[in-house]
Amino acid sequence: MPKKSQEKNRGWIRRVSLHLAPPSLRDNTADVDRLMKGIKKSLGSAADVCVDLSLARKISSSLKQWNYRVNASVYHAHDAWHLIDISDARDGEGFFGLALDLGSTTLVLRLIDLETGKYIDETSFHNPQIEIGADILTRIHFATREGGLSQLQGMLIDRINEEIKALTQKQGIRQASIMGMSVAGNTTMTHLFLGLNPYGICREPYIPVVNRIGLILSRELGLAINPGAPVLVAPNVGSYFGGDLIAGILASGMNRQSEISFLVDVGTNAEVVIGNREWLMACAGAAGPALEGGVADMGMMAGPGVIDRVVIDPVTREFRIGTIQDPGHTDGLQDERPVGICGSGLIDLAAQLFVAGMIDLRGKFVEAACGDRLVEMDGTRHLVVVSAEASGTGHALTLSQTDIDGLIRSKAAMYTILTTIANTVNISFREVAKFYVAGTFGSYIDPRSAIIIGMIPDLPLETYISLGNTSLEGAGLALLGTEAREALFQIRDQITYLELNVNQEFMNLFSAAKFIPHTDRSLFPTVAIGDGS
Amino acid sequence: MPKKSQEKNRGWIRRVSLHLAPPSLRDNTADVDRLMKGIKKSLGSAADVCVDLSLARKISSSLKQWNYRVNASVYHAHDAWHLIDISDARDGEGFFGLALDLGSTTLVLRLIDLETGKYIDETSFHNPQIEIGADILTRIHFATREGGLSQLQGMLIDRINEEIKALTQKQGIRQASIMGMSVAGNTTMTHLFLGLNPYGICREPYIPVVNRIGLILSRELGLAINPGAPVLVAPNVGSYFGGDLIAGILASGMNRQSEISFLVDVGTNAEVVIGNREWLMACAGAAGPALEGGVADMGMMAGPGVIDRVVIDPVTREFRIGTIQDPGHTDGLQDERPVGICGSGLIDLAAQLFVAGMIDLRGKFVEAACGDRLVEMDGTRHLVVVSAEASGTGHALTLSQTDIDGLIRSKAAMYTILTTIANTVNISFREVAKFYVAGTFGSYIDPRSAIIIGMIPDLPLETYISLGNTSLEGAGLALLGTEAREALFQIRDQITYLELNVNQEFMNLFSAAKFIPHTDRSLFPTVAIGDGS
Repeated sequence: MPKKSQEKNRGWIRRVSLHLAPPSLRDNTADVDRLMKGIKKSLGSAADVCVDLSLARKISSSLKQWNYRVNASVYHAHDAWHLIDISDARDGEGFFGLALDLGSTTLVLRLIDLETGKYIDETSFHNPQIEIGADILTRIHFATREGGLSQLQGMLIDRINEEIKALTQKQGIRQASIMGMSVAGNTTMTHLFLGLNPYGICREPYIPVVNRIGLILSRELGLAINPGAPVLVAPNVGSYFGGDLIAGILASGMNRQSEISFLVDVGTNAEVVIGNREWLMACAGAAGPALEGGVADMGMMAGPGVIDRVVIDPVTREFRIGTIQDPGHTDGLQDERPVGICGSGLIDLAAQLFVAGMIDLRGKFVEAACGDRLVEMDGTRHLVVVSAEASGTGHALTLSQTDIDGLIRSKAAMYTILTTIANTVNISFREVAKFYVAGTFGSYIDPRSAIIIGMIPDLPLETYISLGNTSLEGAGLALLGTEAREALFQIRDQITYLELNVNQEFMNLFSAAKFIPHTDRSLFPTVAIGDGS
Repeated sequence: MPKKSQEKNRGWIRRVSLHLAPPSLRDNTADVDRLMKGIKKSLGSAADVCVDLSLARKISSSLKQWNYRVNASVYHAHDAWHLIDISDARDGEGFFGLALDLGSTTLVLRLIDLETGKYIDETSFHNPQIEIGADILTRIHFATREGGLSQLQGMLIDRINEEIKALTQKQGIRQASIMGMSVAGNTTMTHLFLGLNPYGICREPYIPVVNRIGLILSRELGLAINPGAPVLVAPNVGSYFGGDLIAGILASGMNRQSEISFLVDVGTNAEVVIGNREWLMACAGAAGPALEGGVADMGMMAGPGVIDRVVIDPVTREFRIGTIQDPGHTDGLQDERPVGICGSGLIDLAAQLFVAGMIDLRGKFVEAACGDRLVEMDGTRHLVVVSAEASGTGHALTLSQTDIDGLIRSKAAMYTILTTIANTVNISFREVAKFYVAGTFGSYIDPRSAIIIGMIPDLPLETYISLGNTSLEGAGLALLGTEAREALFQIRDQITYLELNVNQEFMNLFSAAKFIPHTDRSLFPTVAIGDGS
């Protein structure tokens, strides 16, 4: 039993070191057959080993050249092992893999040692398709133009290849030593990566070209890694629930737990999953823009100089502003001059304004409390968060009433989605043991602030767990483990996708959630009422 | 049970007709997933259906265009079904396959209806590589030159593609409707077809690049059939025992019989297999050239105008010459003017000369019996078989003493090989229930004549069964049946290959067999002694 379980947990991409007996008159097995036999024996596997014609063409001379001592990299698929490549056993280089989080805004590429499972390096970069269109709909539209799809795919692959080159050069390894890759992205990004037409994704009845795509050889995509390396693409549930979220569920481990968890990923959309090892229900809805910082005038993506923490002294109403210095050092309030505010900063700010009585339960500025921080610009009331003198831009950073209204709509949408999906499966929030928060947003958010504004349920703070980039993490797990790879597809098949109907019930819930924290105060027993009530 | 057996006997290339439900808001399965699901259901198979990226790219538009009614062709490999292509269900065209006998001299291409298993058409043509070298060693040598291998492969593929085009045009079918191909050739030809370097095949320790090659997609070889069609290449046992013979064993059925059979294929080499469903032993040796007609001055390949039957009146010593008019009509003596003699004609001629007392038991011309047919040319005695007036070439067709000596060496080699392999497995010729003769040579040979000259054992004539082109036949069977395809690889693994050691024992056997029919007359009790003894 332990042996079997060990076997099951070993990777689906493996490398074996072979010391083959050279051929002789007594042992005149053909070169490829000799290699296949050696691999099979070394793997202790009954499954066939398949060799591609392009590899077969070079095996004879390589075996001779390397004196029949070779490293052979293989991957498992459909009851057989497939040779990726062979290399000189004396060259000493390891074998590696890449996990790619294929975001519509940001891509993150992680280099993994497939021998040890260790993460070696990581790089994150903008999606070059932003040049065509920041939002995904523009890109889908562009893809329908003559040559548009291949242009979008080409710029993506080229950019990824540049990063692969830089990453491998930095680590002093050959690109050809990268023997596998796994990719997790939303449904549209997955289509654009594969050169599949995303046309149907955004049009009724919202049909992707494919949800479950099998392994693809890297050479079919023109990736600058070993041409025989398999590329695993995380499957989609449908047009609005992509492989990034499936990978996220895998990374959270909620699909293996008996207790019920929530997983929330707030990007452009808010995607929510609830369930355990027996069932999973998912839904997605527009809740994101304000939370991502995209709506507020001073809003921006998390990055250096961006406000991510705000504390307002309830007595003096003095603001203490924390900015991001580096993604690794966000635990303290920084002295960095602020240039804007990210989603988590905005939530902090709103929560603090509410606690300090500077906004009321409808989110409206309370003039008496705001004092001279309140100014009128373009016919709208603005709150000066950072003065022109203190800011890093030379201009005052302000928050408008419109910004707050947008945030309230977003937080209300989020809470309504959470309520709706919990109601659908007849689960009360109190039954939820873990509330996983994924994404960059999730790694900065202060759950207490999110509870204060009524965006997430008023649960004990330890319920909330920030997981970071679960898409990348899940892709890495699926690249490394046979069971994890299978789990990706099991999760996909297990999910029930809930179409959110914006019906009267939803609108009633939404309206009730448009207050801070909520019209039903009993839902937020720990949230004190600010002066503004 | 009967159902299971039926299932097992169904083909590994199949086509299913699908009438898919169009997508809707209630059923928003992705297009490719919808197709895969439909195929799986239609096949009644639990195995996955895999779709290539290049196919995935066109599926959405094709499904829409064809109103979700499509024919899908798939093949089975490694526990999964793989989509070859889809077509409009309304176009009414069938789906087809090609079996190819990849001879070093002649190629034969057979068009097969994969729906019914029926043979539709066939074409045979010269191997274009003859231009580089008639013998295989010249080609192997040429392949080591810069660009030589790809030139040899290219000319072969081009020629095959021309024939595919002609065959499909003649039958009024699309090339893209050819959904599979199987190929059987000797080890070198298989290498040249696949673009694999044959260098090691003819050099100690005689190592091919590959013996068991998996399925290859036709587009990897540039074949002018459906690009997604699988190409099955019959496996080789080794350098001197190729896929043509494995296919031949399959075609003979000897691997499924309890009684012991011989299978002999005489081409450039003589290849011999003995065995039954429990064991198979094979060997190959140089015995062919004289038998193929390649050695005799008047010798040539079987073809129109070529002598394949000779009867000599034992009293008048008058010659009655039969020539080949058409491969389908060789049962009578023809009036066609002779232009040469093929291997089977040569055996007939030698047997008749012996029976008529015109050659003695050492194969030497008996002057008294030959009379004025015997002439001296270039210092050698020649027998005029056809006078210049009667021949189709304008010159007399003659048989020299050297030709007969060559034939005797060949027939002695053949008999020695048969004796050696039978001795090795401790089987006497009398225990052999069937003696299958394969190849073009085999379809013309008169077993009685071959027995008279002592080339094959003196067994009842009904023991000898001519099978024709077993390489082509076996390739066709393996293309059609899942079990036959598997059997090809089982046969390959089951065979024990006997290296013929030309040792003292072999030489003794060979010397004893260099008489007509043999020094040990008791081995040939039915052969009467001619006047020449």
